[in-house]
Amino acid sequence: MASKAHKDAASQTNMDVDYVIVYRFAQTDKSTAVANFERLIEALSHVGLATEVRNGENHSLLVFAKVASEEHLFGEVYRSRVKDWMHGVRSAAPEKETRGTLEREPLYEAERLRIIYQLITNPIADGGAGITPKHGEWRNVESVFALHDHEANKKWIKKWSTSYFLKIEDLDDIRDRLGEKIAFYFAFTQSYFTFLFFPAIAGASAWVLLGHFSPFYAIISSLWCTVFTEYWKHQEVDLAVRWGVRGVSKMETHRREFKHEKEATDPITGETVRIFPATKRLQRQLLQVPFAIGTAIALGVLIATCFGIEVFISEIYDGPLKSVLVFLPTGILTTVMPVLVNILTSFATQLTQFENYDTQSAYDKAITQKMFVINFITSYLGIFLTAFVYVPFGTIIVPYLDIFSLTVRPFAENEKQLQSPKAGFTINPSRLRNQVIYFTVTAQIVNQALEVIIPYVKRKGFAKYKKFQSERAINNGGGVNVSDNDPPEEAAFLTRVRQEAELDVYDVTTDLREMVLQFGYLSLFSVVWPLTACSFIVNDWLELRTDAIKIAVEMQRPTPWRADTIGPWLDSLSFLTWLGTITTSALVYLFSNDGLGPGGTPKDIQGWALLLSIFFSEHIFLAVREGVRLIISKLDSPGLQKEKRERFLVRKRYFDESLSQLSRFPGLKDAEVKTDRASLEEDVRRTSLASPEERFWGRQRGPHETAKIGAGLIQRAAPVESKKQQ
Amino acid sequence: MASKAHKDAASQTNMDVDYVIVYRFAQTDKSTAVANFERLIEALSHVGLATEVRNGENHSLLVFAKVASEEHLFGEVYRSRVKDWMHGVRSAAPEKETRGTLEREPLYEAERLRIIYQLITNPIADGGAGITPKHGEWRNVESVFALHDHEANKKWIKKWSTSYFLKIEDLDDIRDRLGEKIAFYFAFTQSYFTFLFFPAIAGASAWVLLGHFSPFYAIISSLWCTVFTEYWKHQEVDLAVRWGVRGVSKMETHRREFKHEKEATDPITGETVRIFPATKRLQRQLLQVPFAIGTAIALGVLIATCFGIEVFISEIYDGPLKSVLVFLPTGILTTVMPVLVNILTSFATQLTQFENYDTQSAYDKAITQKMFVINFITSYLGIFLTAFVYVPFGTIIVPYLDIFSLTVRPFAENEKQLQSPKAGFTINPSRLRNQVIYFTVTAQIVNQALEVIIPYVKRKGFAKYKKFQSERAINNGGGVNVSDNDPPEEAAFLTRVRQEAELDVYDVTTDLREMVLQFGYLSLFSVVWPLTACSFIVNDWLELRTDAIKIAVEMQRPTPWRADTIGPWLDSLSFLTWLGTITTSALVYLFSNDGLGPGGTPKDIQGWALLLSIFFSEHIFLAVREGVRLIISKLDSPGLQKEKRERFLVRKRYFDESLSQLSRFPGLKDAEVKTDRASLEEDVRRTSLASPEERFWGRQRGPHETAKIGAGLIQRAAPVESKKQQ
Repeated sequence: MASKAHKDAASQTNMDVDYVIVYRFAQTDKSTAVANFERLIEALSHVGLATEVRNGENHSLLVFAKVASEEHLFGEVYRSRVKDWMHGVRSAAPEKETRGTLEREPLYEAERLRIIYQLITNPIADGGAGITPKHGEWRNVESVFALHDHEANKKWIKKWSTSYFLKIEDLDDIRDRLGEKIAFYFAFTQSYFTFLFFPAIAGASAWVLLGHFSPFYAIISSLWCTVFTEYWKHQEVDLAVRWGVRGVSKMETHRREFKHEKEATDPITGETVRIFPATKRLQRQLLQVPFAIGTAIALGVLIATCFGIEVFISEIYDGPLKSVLVFLPTGILTTVMPVLVNILTSFATQLTQFENYDTQSAYDKAITQKMFVINFITSYLGIFLTAFVYVPFGTIIVPYLDIFSLTVRPFAENEKQLQSPKAGFTINPSRLRNQVIYFTVTAQIVNQALEVIIPYVKRKGFAKYKKFQSERAINNGGGVNVSDNDPPEEAAFLTRVRQEAELDVYDVTTDLREMVLQFGYLSLFSVVWPLTACSFIVNDWLELRTDAIKIAVEMQRPTPWRADTIGPWLDSLSFLTWLGTITTSALVYLFSNDGLGPGGTPKDIQGWALLLSIFFSEHIFLAVREGVRLIISKLDSPGLQKEKRERFLVRKRYFDESLSQLSRFPGLKDAEVKTDRASLEEDVRRTSLASPEERFWGRQRGPHETAKIGAGLIQRAAPVESKKQQ
Repeated sequence: MASKAHKDAASQTNMDVDYVIVYRFAQTDKSTAVANFERLIEALSHVGLATEVRNGENHSLLVFAKVASEEHLFGEVYRSRVKDWMHGVRSAAPEKETRGTLEREPLYEAERLRIIYQLITNPIADGGAGITPKHGEWRNVESVFALHDHEANKKWIKKWSTSYFLKIEDLDDIRDRLGEKIAFYFAFTQSYFTFLFFPAIAGASAWVLLGHFSPFYAIISSLWCTVFTEYWKHQEVDLAVRWGVRGVSKMETHRREFKHEKEATDPITGETVRIFPATKRLQRQLLQVPFAIGTAIALGVLIATCFGIEVFISEIYDGPLKSVLVFLPTGILTTVMPVLVNILTSFATQLTQFENYDTQSAYDKAITQKMFVINFITSYLGIFLTAFVYVPFGTIIVPYLDIFSLTVRPFAENEKQLQSPKAGFTINPSRLRNQVIYFTVTAQIVNQALEVIIPYVKRKGFAKYKKFQSERAINNGGGVNVSDNDPPEEAAFLTRVRQEAELDVYDVTTDLREMVLQFGYLSLFSVVWPLTACSFIVNDWLELRTDAIKIAVEMQRPTPWRADTIGPWLDSLSFLTWLGTITTSALVYLFSNDGLGPGGTPKDIQGWALLLSIFFSEHIFLAVREGVRLIISKLDSPGLQKEKRERFLVRKRYFDESLSQLSRFPGLKDAEVKTDRASLEEDVRRTSLASPEERFWGRQRGPHETAKIGAGLIQRAAPVESKKQQ
């Protein structure tokens, strides 16, 4: 087909489009839609954006926007840079001659896109067009997105798929194209991936030489988690300086959804500020306690029940279909859990919105904390139950699992198949290990696959559905195919844009959460199966590449936001590291005797010895962490050095400027004190009218006389030395 | 006597003297002494200081220095303020017109004295006279001190002795006269004193209503310690802003004693820096481990031995002189302990010097840590032994105390008096309480008394010794009485200066350490005797007043240094609070059954229950601390508000200045995009020479056309709404 080359060319050019705005009017009556559309175009042109409109899929219009002239953009860039400087993100004030500034420091792609995005979405008061997609008067604006740079994406994926390690330049590239926030995710994952080699090697050695639950591996692993967490904190700063974004997280953006209760005059700025009382928010935050308890109970009951059923079926039940029924609890979990998690997540979101935070960062922190609670329970509770309930107390608890017999009663042939053996029940010593292997290998692979496949299926399915719908519309006689009127030379381009408009929006926190939860398995349970890190290395190498593909192919081009940290997930990392020392020491104490565990006899466990190992392990961890922090703080970092140099130069300039003023005053060293005022002083000295102070200071006329009189006093003093020699 | 009024007048005036420099030449031969003295006077006059010399006591000269003209001082003040601004201590750059700056922000006394002191002692390269007392070429310069303002001191002591609470204005007054470092000590102690009322009331109630070891009081006390520590951190910032010193602790002063190993060019500043390798320092720092172990062993053995002897004599020995012999261990402790502590302190100092820190703050931190280890053991080990060894394991250990019998063997009449009863030995249940009472009441009173009396005796004794020595010198014929040649009108003044020259130098860290150690008793052991806080209230009210007297009468006027924190002792406070939750929960678990303890039967103690209470108590503490930090961080503080306002105003000015430049570019909102270039565009649109991009953007001529075409597309779209209503 001849259109192949044509298509390729179409995927090469973005027609200089900066942003595409999808305007959907399916739910609005036409006259309103027209009026709103006119307002949209007017708003865009007001902030200096040129526009073109084309037909979109399914009752939508595609508005293409680009900056009318570079001169307009320069003003915005300058405003943004001055703001950065005022918040300490840049050490030197930008020069007032904008052209020069931009020539010395050209915009990178992500910066350009961010500034234009802000131009479109910022409130009118802040100089933007005030367009808020899906919100208020702009509810027809479905989305605002930039177009993928397909050529760069191809190169990106090709390069990454053929290299083992990512270089810092690869991350710089991400940052230049997709912004710092996404670059920080990749930097974190890459850093984590590199660090993984250490526990992987230690783990493999321990597995071969020392068996499971080796205290040696436990120490190495806890130490590694601490070093990694602290090192990442250090590297975060370094990267933030490298990318010129250090401090941006302190530039608060106000949430549009914030509802103020009263307005007051800020005592500091004199501006009117919108206030929501902190005490009232605190009251609302207290709802987090019942929420956390409710979450723990709901998820805990579900997990514990499935756990109980599974233990019952696999270890007590002895009837037919056992090999099938054993998957029953997994089935329940896989179907009920996502529903429950969705409900809880929406509840968490509502609760966080109800808490009514003023700034985006406070909101993000609050929602991340709640998500962490949910994820913590779903990810780790199963293993906790096996490790700290089933294995040590199995022989006590298992007989009571009869209650779960009703789940399989229909299949049982007789009562005996449903009864636990009154004596001689032994726990399954490999259950804990199998469970850890399931979560760290099987579940990771499944997740990985779903992450790529689900959006793919969704994308293809939607495309088909859209096509079907359009065709039906045409058959109904009312509509025409949207692409019918496309100019032939734009057809391929517009088809591509229509496809990108239907894609999902990429959310980097989901991927980040995944990594943090993976880190949790390592810190909490890897002592059970030391090969964990090896599995993660393979998984994460793939993860980095599939994430790249996901962003480049399955998702809309993300709006490039800035960030100087991975944000509140850092706290989760620290928490998991800390908790890891507790679980690891407990696991080693409980199960290290032969690498299998004490066989489910709780009386062998000495409570005080268990607690003592936890106590020591935890406090040694706290001490080591301080040490690691100290040592890492001594590490020099190119980023910090650069920042220091810049700050030093700025200061030096100011200092030199300021001190040059000092020469206006009499130089201190040139002052000839008192000597040439002799006659006047002589008078003062003799005059009884002078104050005691004047007389006191008049006795010696200048330094030479002081020195002379002092010398005289020394000479007249009693000879100490000579006396000693007597 | 007629001289009474005269003397009063002499104590009123300081003759405008800024600093007195004591030049002692007893150990130097006279020609060198004369030469050095001349250099001293020259150095002082070079930096603009006027000088007068008078005879001092015991082969010394008193050099009086004052700033020759205020104009000279202004330059120094300006230099200092610019430096502050560069380090972020001031938010606004000082105005370049110095006179105006000083009129708006006059110097306070302490600032003036600090600047003059720095003028005398700073290196010549930094614009000072480079005079380093007792060091190198200036080893004849014994001290540099300012004269007391006796009138202000009198008012100060009078005011404080007659008021219950100190107001913030009283602290401002201290800061104005003695500098921020000392003011911070008083502020801390006052804040601690005020907070003490809470545990005092809770403790008294618990003592009356609940008996000892009440869990209720334990919770209140731990909570109080946390709140106090966190609140103080908050208040520290507030005070630092109030006093305009926030950030001064980050302005590093280099230590003169630092020995560099090599010189290198700083990659940042291009200056030559002196370097001591961090790895080598780390090696030296590792010596802290044997030091800490050695300290623990040396002091531990001493304390444990005396403890053992005391238990043996008071509870086993049954012979004559028991009532006297029982003081034997106290005697050993009081004589040996100070000697040992002195040795260890000098060892700690040498070790810290050997560690060769570059900056004063690093040095202070290192020495404080070592001192804290020493003080921790001497202060708390005795009680730890009683609480966690003697009481729980007394019945097991006491029989082995026979080894101490040799200490009293000479006094015993028969062997039986030296033997412990084979059975039926019971521990003394009130020993723990008595010991806590001893440390929190008796020892505090004794310390308090010594703190005032020792310097007094020293002062009087030295004066007598000096007098005797001078008289002997006169009798030997060689010398004359130093005051013989004093002009009569100056005689009283000079006598006073000679006295002040002999006084000790005040070290605020000693007093601060005392307060922190006192806080330790409260956090660690007050659950044993809840009246502890009541005793401390009385003690600290007195402490604040006697410290004032000490500074005003017993010591030289301290050089007013700046500080924005109580420094490394803050870490000790946090540590003691943390440890307090552990000891308190352990004490409550061990002894709460009837307020007396379990009577020394270790089998009653469940190890796991003890450790579990510690575990929970510690982790609840950590969680509560986070909560307290969060709440305290929400507290508004006048200081921070002031700082924010200043910073806002500075920024606003810069921002307004910078953005006014933007009007030079075409205003974005005025841009009329594309509309009036119609004919040109028409051409472009038709020309096949144009690029695809140009053609794409040329299809709609300006926003109006885009809006029109968009409206057309909307109108032509299939009617969605109507279909729904079908």
